[in-house]
Amino acid sequence: MQSSQAIMDLQNQTLFADLPEETIQRIAQSAILRHYSAGNALFDQEESGEALYLIVSGEIGIEHYGALGQERVINQMYAPCIVGEVAVLTHVPRTATARCLTAVRCYVIYRDIFKELSRKYPQILWNLASILAERLTQTNRDLTMRTFANAETWIAYTLHSMFEERHRKNVPKHNELPVTHADLARRSGNSRETITRTLKKLEEVGVVKTHPRMIKILNAEELEALANDLGDF
Amino acid sequence: MQSSQAIMDLQNQTLFADLPEETIQRIAQSAILRHYSAGNALFDQEESGEALYLIVSGEIGIEHYGALGQERVINQMYAPCIVGEVAVLTHVPRTATARCLTAVRCYVIYRDIFKELSRKYPQILWNLASILAERLTQTNRDLTMRTFANAETWIAYTLHSMFEERHRKNVPKHNELPVTHADLARRSGNSRETITRTLKKLEEVGVVKTHPRMIKILNAEELEALANDLGDF
Repeated sequence: MQSSQAIMDLQNQTLFADLPEETIQRIAQSAILRHYSAGNALFDQEESGEALYLIVSGEIGIEHYGALGQERVINQMYAPCIVGEVAVLTHVPRTATARCLTAVRCYVIYRDIFKELSRKYPQILWNLASILAERLTQTNRDLTMRTFANAETWIAYTLHSMFEERHRKNVPKHNELPVTHADLARRSGNSRETITRTLKKLEEVGVVKTHPRMIKILNAEELEALANDLGDF
Repeated sequence: MQSSQAIMDLQNQTLFADLPEETIQRIAQSAILRHYSAGNALFDQEESGEALYLIVSGEIGIEHYGALGQERVINQMYAPCIVGEVAVLTHVPRTATARCLTAVRCYVIYRDIFKELSRKYPQILWNLASILAERLTQTNRDLTMRTFANAETWIAYTLHSMFEERHRKNVPKHNELPVTHADLARRSGNSRETITRTLKKLEEVGVVKTHPRMIKILNAEELEALANDLGDF
Protein backbone atom coordinates (compact mmCIF):
# COMPACT_ATOMS: atom_id res chain seq x y z
CA MET A 1 0.00 0.00 0.00
CA GLN A 2 1.47 3.34 -1.05
CA SER A 3 1.22 6.49 1.01
CA SER A 4 -1.78 8.67 0.29
CA GLN A 5 0.74 11.46 -0.47
CA ALA A 6 2.19 9.50 -3.42
CA ILE A 7 -1.29 8.80 -4.74
CA MET A 8 -2.30 12.46 -4.51
CA ASP A 9 0.98 13.48 -6.19
CA LEU A 10 0.38 11.15 -9.12
CA GLN A 11 -3.33 11.94 -9.46
CA ASN A 12 -2.37 15.55 -10.25
CA GLN A 13 -0.34 14.46 -13.27
CA THR A 14 -1.99 14.80 -16.70
CA LEU A 15 -0.22 11.54 -17.62
CA PHE A 16 -2.54 9.71 -15.24
CA ALA A 17 -5.76 11.61 -15.98
CA ASP A 18 -8.96 9.51 -16.07
CA LEU A 19 -7.38 6.56 -14.27
CA PRO A 20 -9.18 5.02 -11.27
CA GLU A 21 -7.52 5.45 -7.86
CA GLU A 22 -6.70 1.75 -7.57
CA THR A 23 -4.71 1.96 -10.81
CA ILE A 24 -2.82 5.00 -9.50
CA GLN A 25 -2.06 2.98 -6.35
CA ARG A 26 -0.46 0.26 -8.50
CA ILE A 27 1.48 2.83 -10.52
CA ALA A 28 2.77 4.43 -7.31
CA GLN A 29 4.49 1.12 -6.50
CA SER A 30 6.60 1.43 -9.67
CA ALA A 31 7.51 5.11 -9.43
CA ILE A 32 10.62 6.12 -7.50
CA LEU A 33 10.39 9.28 -5.39
CA ARG A 34 13.45 11.56 -5.65
CA HIS A 35 14.49 14.92 -4.28
CA TYR A 36 16.86 17.28 -6.09
CA SER A 37 18.42 20.55 -4.93
CA ALA A 38 18.34 23.73 -7.00
CA GLY A 39 21.11 23.70 -9.61
CA ASN A 40 21.21 19.92 -10.07
CA ALA A 41 20.34 18.34 -13.42
CA LEU A 42 17.71 15.61 -13.80
CA PHE A 43 19.58 14.65 -16.96
CA ASP A 44 22.10 16.15 -19.37
CA GLN A 45 21.90 16.81 -23.09
CA GLU A 46 23.42 13.96 -25.18
CA GLU A 47 22.98 11.34 -22.43
CA SER A 48 21.01 8.28 -23.40
CA GLY A 49 17.54 8.64 -21.90
CA GLU A 50 16.28 5.82 -19.71
CA ALA A 51 13.54 7.43 -17.64
CA LEU A 52 10.81 10.05 -17.51
CA TYR A 53 10.29 12.43 -14.60
CA LEU A 54 6.98 13.49 -13.09
CA ILE A 55 7.59 16.77 -11.32
CA VAL A 56 5.33 17.17 -8.31
CA SER A 57 6.88 20.30 -6.84
CA GLY A 58 9.43 22.85 -8.02
CA GLU A 59 10.60 24.39 -11.28
CA ILE A 60 12.71 23.00 -14.13
CA GLY A 61 14.74 24.90 -16.71
CA ILE A 62 15.18 23.22 -20.09
CA GLU A 63 18.63 24.22 -21.40
CA HIS A 64 20.03 23.61 -24.83
CA TYR A 65 23.75 23.73 -25.54
CA GLY A 66 25.15 24.76 -28.91
CA ALA A 67 28.08 23.18 -30.72
CA LEU A 68 30.54 25.44 -28.88
CA GLY A 69 28.93 24.82 -25.49
CA GLN A 70 26.92 28.03 -25.28
CA GLU A 71 23.75 27.70 -23.29
CA ARG A 72 20.24 28.75 -24.16
CA VAL A 73 17.28 28.35 -21.81
CA ILE A 74 14.49 27.01 -23.98
CA ASN A 75 11.77 26.83 -21.44
CA GLN A 76 10.76 26.90 -17.81
CA MET A 77 8.44 24.19 -16.57
CA TYR A 78 6.39 24.16 -13.39
CA ALA A 79 4.93 21.30 -11.38
CA PRO A 80 2.83 19.35 -12.05
CA CYS A 81 4.42 18.38 -15.34
CA ILE A 82 6.30 15.64 -17.17
CA VAL A 83 9.91 15.94 -18.35
CA GLY A 84 12.09 13.59 -20.40
CA GLU A 85 9.32 11.54 -22.00
CA VAL A 86 10.64 11.91 -25.58
CA ALA A 87 13.79 9.85 -25.03
CA VAL A 88 11.75 7.07 -23.41
CA LEU A 89 9.65 6.78 -26.58
CA THR A 90 12.24 7.24 -29.30
CA HIS A 91 15.60 6.02 -27.91
CA VAL A 92 17.32 9.21 -29.11
CA PRO A 93 19.84 10.86 -26.77
CA ARG A 94 18.51 13.66 -24.55
CA THR A 95 18.13 16.74 -26.76
CA ALA A 96 18.43 19.16 -23.83
CA THR A 97 19.46 19.37 -20.20
CA ALA A 98 16.75 19.54 -17.51
CA ARG A 99 18.00 21.55 -14.53
CA CYS A 100 16.26 22.21 -11.22
CA LEU A 101 15.70 25.94 -10.72
CA THR A 102 14.36 25.32 -7.20
CA ALA A 103 14.27 22.31 -4.90
CA VAL A 104 12.39 19.64 -6.84
CA ARG A 105 10.37 16.63 -5.75
CA CYS A 106 9.62 14.15 -8.51
CA TYR A 107 8.83 10.55 -9.39
CA VAL A 108 11.08 8.70 -11.81
CA ILE A 109 9.71 5.96 -14.07
CA TYR A 110 12.18 3.87 -16.09
CA ARG A 111 11.50 2.91 -19.72
CA ASP A 112 10.81 -0.78 -19.13
CA ILE A 113 8.44 -0.04 -16.25
CA PHE A 114 6.72 2.62 -18.33
CA LYS A 115 6.25 0.19 -21.22
CA GLU A 116 4.74 -2.35 -18.84
CA LEU A 117 2.41 0.21 -17.23
CA SER A 118 1.29 1.51 -20.61
CA ARG A 119 0.53 -2.02 -21.78
CA LYS A 120 -1.62 -2.60 -18.71
CA TYR A 121 -3.26 0.84 -18.70
CA PRO A 122 -3.44 2.16 -22.29
CA GLN A 123 -5.17 5.36 -21.08
CA ILE A 124 -1.64 6.45 -20.07
CA LEU A 125 -0.59 6.34 -23.73
CA TRP A 126 -3.63 8.35 -24.78
CA ASN A 127 -2.72 10.96 -22.15
CA LEU A 128 0.93 10.99 -23.23
CA ALA A 129 0.01 11.41 -26.91
CA SER A 130 -2.28 14.30 -25.92
CA ILE A 131 0.51 15.98 -23.92
CA LEU A 132 2.89 15.61 -26.89
CA ALA A 133 0.26 16.93 -29.32
CA GLU A 134 -0.19 20.03 -27.18
CA ARG A 135 3.56 20.60 -26.94
CA LEU A 136 3.88 20.19 -30.70
CA THR A 137 1.14 22.77 -31.27
CA GLN A 138 2.87 25.18 -28.88
CA THR A 139 6.29 24.63 -30.47
CA ASN A 140 4.85 25.19 -33.95
CA ARG A 141 3.33 28.44 -32.71
CA ASP A 142 6.72 29.43 -31.27
CA LEU A 143 8.34 28.65 -34.62
CA THR A 144 5.82 30.77 -36.53
CA MET A 145 6.35 33.67 -34.12
CA ARG A 146 10.12 33.27 -34.24
CA THR A 147 10.02 33.36 -38.04
CA PHE A 148 7.60 36.22 -38.64
CA ALA A 149 7.46 38.43 -35.56
CA ASN A 150 9.76 41.42 -35.20
CA ALA A 151 11.85 41.67 -32.03
CA GLU A 152 9.21 43.68 -30.14
CA THR A 153 6.38 41.26 -30.86
CA TRP A 154 8.61 38.28 -30.15
CA ILE A 155 9.63 39.60 -26.74
CA ALA A 156 6.02 40.43 -25.83
CA TYR A 157 5.03 36.92 -26.96
CA THR A 158 7.78 35.27 -24.89
CA LEU A 159 6.96 37.24 -21.75
CA HIS A 160 3.25 36.56 -22.17
CA SER A 161 3.84 32.82 -22.68
CA MET A 162 5.88 32.70 -19.46
CA PHE A 163 3.22 34.68 -17.60
CA GLU A 164 0.42 32.42 -18.87
CA GLU A 165 2.24 29.23 -17.92
CA ARG A 166 2.96 30.53 -14.39
CA HIS A 167 -0.65 31.64 -14.05
CA ARG A 168 -2.00 28.28 -15.24
CA LYS A 169 0.23 26.38 -12.80
CA ASN A 170 -0.62 28.66 -9.84
CA VAL A 171 3.01 29.64 -9.34
CA PRO A 172 3.24 32.13 -6.45
CA LYS A 173 3.82 35.71 -7.69
CA HIS A 174 3.05 34.47 -11.16
CA ASN A 175 3.39 37.98 -12.59
CA GLU A 176 7.01 38.29 -11.41
CA LEU A 177 9.02 36.53 -14.12
CA PRO A 178 12.48 35.44 -12.94
CA VAL A 179 14.38 36.46 -16.07
CA THR A 180 17.27 38.79 -16.81
CA HIS A 181 17.97 40.73 -20.00
CA ALA A 182 20.74 38.22 -20.71
CA ASP A 183 18.26 35.31 -20.40
CA LEU A 184 15.93 36.95 -22.89
CA ALA A 185 18.81 37.65 -25.28
CA ARG A 186 19.96 34.01 -25.09
CA ARG A 187 16.45 32.73 -25.50
CA SER A 188 15.62 34.93 -28.48
CA GLY A 189 18.84 35.25 -30.44
CA ASN A 190 18.43 39.05 -30.19
CA SER A 191 21.17 41.32 -28.92
CA ARG A 192 21.17 42.64 -25.34
CA GLU A 193 20.69 46.11 -26.83
CA THR A 194 17.50 45.09 -28.63
CA ILE A 195 16.16 43.46 -25.46
CA THR A 196 16.95 46.54 -23.35
CA ARG A 197 15.39 48.92 -25.89
CA THR A 198 12.24 46.79 -26.22
CA LEU A 199 11.76 46.36 -22.48
CA LYS A 200 12.15 50.14 -22.07
CA LYS A 201 9.34 50.66 -24.59
CA LEU A 202 7.13 48.16 -22.75
CA GLU A 203 7.94 49.92 -19.49
CA GLU A 204 7.05 53.35 -20.88
CA VAL A 205 3.54 52.19 -21.84
CA GLY A 206 3.05 50.64 -18.38
CA VAL A 207 2.98 47.00 -19.49
CA VAL A 208 5.99 45.76 -17.51
CA LYS A 209 8.38 46.97 -14.84
CA THR A 210 11.94 45.68 -14.90
CA HIS A 211 13.78 44.88 -11.69
CA PRO A 212 17.17 43.25 -11.09
CA ARG A 213 16.79 39.62 -12.27
CA MET A 214 13.01 39.98 -12.54
CA ILE A 215 10.42 41.40 -14.93
CA LYS A 216 7.04 42.22 -13.42
CA ILE A 217 3.98 42.06 -15.67
CA LEU A 218 1.70 45.04 -14.88
CA ASN A 219 -0.83 44.75 -17.72
CA ALA A 220 -1.23 41.19 -19.02
CA GLU A 221 -4.09 42.09 -21.35
CA GLU A 222 -2.08 44.74 -23.18
CA LEU A 223 0.95 42.42 -23.26
CA GLU A 224 -1.18 39.75 -24.94
CA ALA A 225 -2.39 42.27 -27.53
CA LEU A 226 1.22 43.20 -28.33
CA ALA A 227 2.17 39.50 -28.48
CA ASN A 228 -0.52 38.86 -31.09
CA ASP A 229 0.54 41.74 -33.31
CA LEU A 230 2.19 40.00 -36.24
CA GLY A 231 2.10 43.24 -38.26
CA ASP A 232 1.91 42.61 -41.97
CA PHE A 233 2.26 38.82 -41.76
CA MET B 1 -12.57 -9.26 -45.83
CA GLN B 2 -10.59 -6.26 -47.01
CA SER B 3 -8.59 -6.12 -50.22
CA SER B 4 -4.96 -7.10 -49.91
CA GLN B 5 -4.15 -3.63 -51.34
CA ALA B 6 -5.72 -1.92 -48.32
CA ILE B 7 -3.81 -4.18 -45.95
CA MET B 8 -0.50 -3.50 -47.72
CA ASP B 9 -1.26 0.25 -47.67
CA LEU B 10 -1.88 0.26 -43.93
CA GLN B 11 1.04 -2.04 -43.08
CA ASN B 12 3.37 0.63 -44.47
CA GLN B 13 2.13 3.21 -41.96
CA THR B 14 4.27 3.81 -38.86
CA LEU B 15 0.99 4.21 -36.94
CA PHE B 16 0.38 0.49 -37.39
CA ALA B 17 3.95 -0.77 -36.89
CA ASP B 18 4.31 -4.01 -34.92
CA LEU B 19 0.66 -5.00 -35.35
CA PRO B 20 -0.22 -8.50 -36.61
CA GLU B 21 -1.78 -8.77 -40.07
CA GLU B 22 -5.14 -9.88 -38.70
CA THR B 23 -5.33 -6.68 -36.64
CA ILE B 24 -4.51 -4.60 -39.73
CA GLN B 25 -7.32 -6.45 -41.52
CA ARG B 26 -9.78 -5.36 -38.83
CA ILE B 27 -8.47 -1.78 -38.92
CA ALA B 28 -8.87 -1.72 -42.71
CA GLN B 29 -12.60 -2.23 -42.20
CA SER B 30 -12.82 1.06 -40.26
CA ALA B 31 -10.66 3.21 -42.54
CA ILE B 32 -12.27 5.04 -45.46
CA LEU B 33 -10.30 5.18 -48.72
CA ARG B 34 -10.36 8.59 -50.42
CA HIS B 35 -8.79 10.14 -53.50
CA TYR B 36 -7.97 13.84 -53.78
CA SER B 37 -6.73 15.84 -56.77
CA ALA B 38 -3.74 18.18 -56.64
CA GLY B 39 -4.75 21.54 -55.18
CA ASN B 40 -7.55 20.23 -52.95
CA ALA B 41 -7.33 20.54 -49.17
CA LEU B 42 -7.72 17.57 -46.81
CA PHE B 43 -8.75 20.15 -44.21
CA ASP B 44 -8.49 23.89 -43.63
CA GLN B 45 -6.89 25.86 -40.82
CA GLU B 46 -9.41 26.83 -38.07
CA GLU B 47 -11.86 24.02 -38.94
CA SER B 48 -12.72 21.69 -36.10
CA GLY B 49 -10.77 18.48 -36.61
CA GLU B 50 -12.71 15.23 -36.70
CA ALA B 51 -10.38 12.83 -38.48
CA LEU B 52 -6.80 11.83 -39.17
CA TYR B 53 -5.46 11.01 -42.63
CA LEU B 54 -3.05 8.21 -43.53
CA ILE B 55 -1.40 9.22 -46.79
CA VAL B 56 -0.54 6.17 -48.89
CA SER B 57 0.51 7.96 -52.06
CA GLY B 58 1.20 11.56 -53.02
CA GLU B 59 2.53 14.74 -51.38
CA ILE B 60 0.95 17.15 -48.90
CA GLY B 61 1.84 20.78 -48.23
CA ILE B 62 1.19 22.07 -44.71
CA GLU B 63 0.21 25.74 -45.01
CA HIS B 64 -0.19 28.25 -42.24
CA TYR B 65 -2.14 31.46 -42.68
CA GLY B 66 -1.32 34.62 -40.76
CA ALA B 67 -3.79 37.04 -39.23
CA LEU B 68 -4.03 38.97 -42.50
CA GLY B 69 -4.42 35.82 -44.58
CA GLN B 70 -0.85 35.55 -45.82
CA GLU B 71 0.27 32.03 -46.49
CA ARG B 72 3.40 30.27 -45.40
CA VAL B 73 4.25 26.70 -46.38
CA ILE B 74 5.48 25.07 -43.18
CA ASN B 75 6.34 21.69 -44.50
CA GLN B 76 6.03 19.19 -47.29
CA MET B 77 5.06 15.64 -46.37
CA TYR B 78 5.46 12.52 -48.44
CA ALA B 79 3.62 9.18 -48.30
CA PRO B 80 3.60 7.08 -46.24
CA CYS B 81 2.76 9.50 -43.44
CA ILE B 82 0.04 10.65 -41.06
CA VAL B 83 -1.59 14.09 -41.17
CA GLY B 84 -4.13 15.74 -38.87
CA GLU B 85 -3.60 13.56 -35.80
CA VAL B 86 -3.17 16.48 -33.37
CA ALA B 87 -6.77 17.71 -33.64
CA VAL B 88 -8.06 14.18 -33.06
CA LEU B 89 -6.20 14.03 -29.75
CA THR B 90 -6.69 17.55 -28.40
CA HIS B 91 -10.00 18.85 -29.81
CA VAL B 92 -8.31 22.12 -30.86
CA PRO B 93 -9.20 23.58 -34.29
CA ARG B 94 -6.85 22.69 -37.15
CA THR B 95 -3.72 24.81 -36.75
CA ALA B 96 -2.84 24.62 -40.45
CA THR B 97 -4.27 23.69 -43.84
CA ALA B 98 -3.21 20.39 -45.45
CA ARG B 99 -3.23 20.73 -49.24
CA CYS B 100 -2.54 18.04 -51.84
CA LEU B 101 0.49 18.97 -53.96
CA THR B 102 -0.10 15.96 -56.21
CA ALA B 103 -2.92 13.46 -56.60
CA VAL B 104 -3.30 11.84 -53.17
CA ARG B 105 -4.66 8.49 -52.07
CA CYS B 106 -5.34 8.22 -48.35
CA TYR B 107 -7.36 6.52 -45.62
CA VAL B 108 -9.47 8.63 -43.28
CA ILE B 109 -10.14 7.52 -39.71
CA TYR B 110 -12.65 9.50 -37.65
CA ARG B 111 -12.03 10.37 -34.00
CA ASP B 112 -14.56 7.98 -32.47
CA ILE B 113 -13.33 5.09 -34.61
CA PHE B 114 -9.73 5.95 -33.75
CA LYS B 115 -10.54 5.99 -30.03
CA GLU B 116 -12.17 2.57 -30.34
CA LEU B 117 -9.24 1.13 -32.33
CA SER B 118 -6.70 2.51 -29.88
CA ARG B 119 -8.62 1.00 -26.96
CA LYS B 120 -8.55 -2.40 -28.66
CA TYR B 121 -4.97 -2.16 -29.94
CA PRO B 122 -2.91 0.06 -27.57
CA GLN B 123 0.21 -0.47 -29.71
CA ILE B 124 -1.36 2.16 -32.02
CA LEU B 125 -1.10 4.73 -29.21
CA TRP B 126 2.51 3.82 -28.54
CA ASN B 127 3.24 4.31 -32.25
CA LEU B 128 1.34 7.62 -32.32
CA ALA B 129 3.19 8.92 -29.26
CA SER B 130 6.49 7.96 -30.90
CA ILE B 131 5.56 9.80 -34.12
CA LEU B 132 4.63 12.90 -32.10
CA ALA B 133 7.83 12.69 -30.05
CA GLU B 134 9.89 12.62 -33.25
CA ARG B 135 8.00 15.57 -34.71
CA LEU B 136 8.48 17.50 -31.48
CA THR B 137 12.23 16.83 -31.56
CA GLN B 138 12.38 17.98 -35.19
CA THR B 139 10.33 21.12 -34.50
CA ASN B 140 12.52 22.00 -31.52
CA ARG B 141 15.57 21.63 -33.75
CA ASP B 142 13.90 23.90 -36.34
CA LEU B 143 13.21 26.45 -33.59
CA THR B 144 16.83 26.40 -32.40
CA MET B 145 18.07 26.86 -35.97
CA ARG B 146 15.53 29.59 -36.65
CA THR B 147 16.66 31.44 -33.53
CA PHE B 148 20.42 31.13 -33.83
CA ALA B 149 21.36 30.48 -37.43
CA ASN B 150 22.15 33.31 -39.81
CA ALA B 151 20.25 33.44 -43.12
CA GLU B 152 22.88 31.37 -44.99
CA THR B 153 22.92 28.55 -42.46
CA TRP B 154 19.16 28.59 -42.15
CA ILE B 155 18.64 28.24 -45.89
CA ALA B 156 21.20 25.42 -46.11
CA TYR B 157 19.44 23.72 -43.18
CA THR B 158 16.00 24.06 -44.80
CA LEU B 159 17.16 22.73 -48.17
CA HIS B 160 18.99 19.86 -46.51
CA SER B 161 15.96 18.93 -44.38
CA MET B 162 13.78 18.83 -47.52
CA PHE B 163 16.39 16.75 -49.35
CA GLU B 164 16.71 14.30 -46.45
CA GLU B 165 12.95 13.81 -46.13
CA ARG B 166 12.57 13.17 -49.89
CA HIS B 167 15.50 10.75 -49.78
CA ARG B 168 14.09 8.90 -46.76
CA LYS B 169 10.69 8.53 -48.44
CA ASN B 170 12.13 7.41 -51.79
CA VAL B 171 10.53 10.33 -53.63
CA PRO B 172 11.52 10.14 -57.33
CA LYS B 173 14.17 12.73 -58.23
CA HIS B 174 14.64 13.35 -54.54
CA ASN B 175 17.45 15.82 -55.18
CA GLU B 176 15.21 18.11 -57.25
CA LEU B 177 13.39 20.21 -54.65
CA PRO B 178 10.18 21.75 -55.99
CA VAL B 179 10.62 25.20 -54.39
CA THR B 180 10.83 28.74 -55.69
CA HIS B 181 12.71 31.68 -54.19
CA ALA B 182 9.33 33.04 -53.09
CA ASP B 183 8.55 29.77 -51.25
CA LEU B 184 11.85 29.94 -49.39
CA ALA B 185 11.28 33.60 -48.52
CA ARG B 186 7.77 32.80 -47.18
CA ARG B 187 9.04 29.81 -45.28
CA SER B 188 11.97 31.60 -43.68
CA GLY B 189 10.78 35.14 -43.06
CA ASN B 190 13.82 36.35 -45.05
CA SER B 191 13.55 38.78 -47.94
CA ARG B 192 13.59 37.56 -51.55
CA GLU B 193 16.89 39.45 -51.93
CA THR B 194 18.53 37.49 -49.11
CA ILE B 195 17.29 34.21 -50.58
CA THR B 196 18.57 35.07 -54.05
CA ARG B 197 21.96 36.20 -52.73
CA THR B 198 22.37 33.07 -50.59
CA LEU B 199 21.35 30.67 -53.35
CA LYS B 200 23.84 32.37 -55.66
CA LYS B 201 26.60 31.74 -53.10
CA LEU B 202 25.56 28.06 -52.80
CA GLU B 203 25.54 27.83 -56.59
CA GLU B 204 29.03 29.33 -56.90
CA VAL B 205 30.50 26.63 -54.61
CA GLY B 206 28.74 23.90 -56.59
CA VAL B 207 26.33 22.82 -53.85
CA VAL B 208 23.05 23.58 -55.64
CA LYS B 209 21.83 24.57 -59.07
CA THR B 210 18.72 26.74 -59.30
CA HIS B 211 16.17 26.19 -62.05
CA PRO B 212 12.76 27.77 -62.61
CA ARG B 213 10.54 26.50 -59.74
CA MET B 214 13.16 23.92 -58.72
CA ILE B 215 16.42 23.76 -56.78
CA LYS B 216 18.67 20.81 -57.56
CA ILE B 217 21.00 19.55 -54.83
CA LEU B 218 24.41 18.73 -56.35
CA ASN B 219 26.45 18.11 -53.19
CA ALA B 220 24.36 16.91 -50.26
CA GLU B 221 27.37 16.31 -48.01
CA GLU B 222 28.63 19.86 -48.33
CA LEU B 223 25.08 21.19 -47.91
CA GLU B 224 24.79 19.27 -44.63
CA ALA B 225 28.10 20.71 -43.42
CA LEU B 226 26.83 24.23 -44.17
CA ALA B 227 23.50 23.43 -42.45
CA ASN B 228 25.32 22.43 -39.27
CA ASP B 229 27.44 25.56 -39.12
CA LEU B 230 25.90 27.50 -36.25
CA GLY B 231 28.93 29.83 -36.13
CA ASP B 232 29.53 31.24 -32.68
CA PHE B 233 26.38 29.81 -31.10
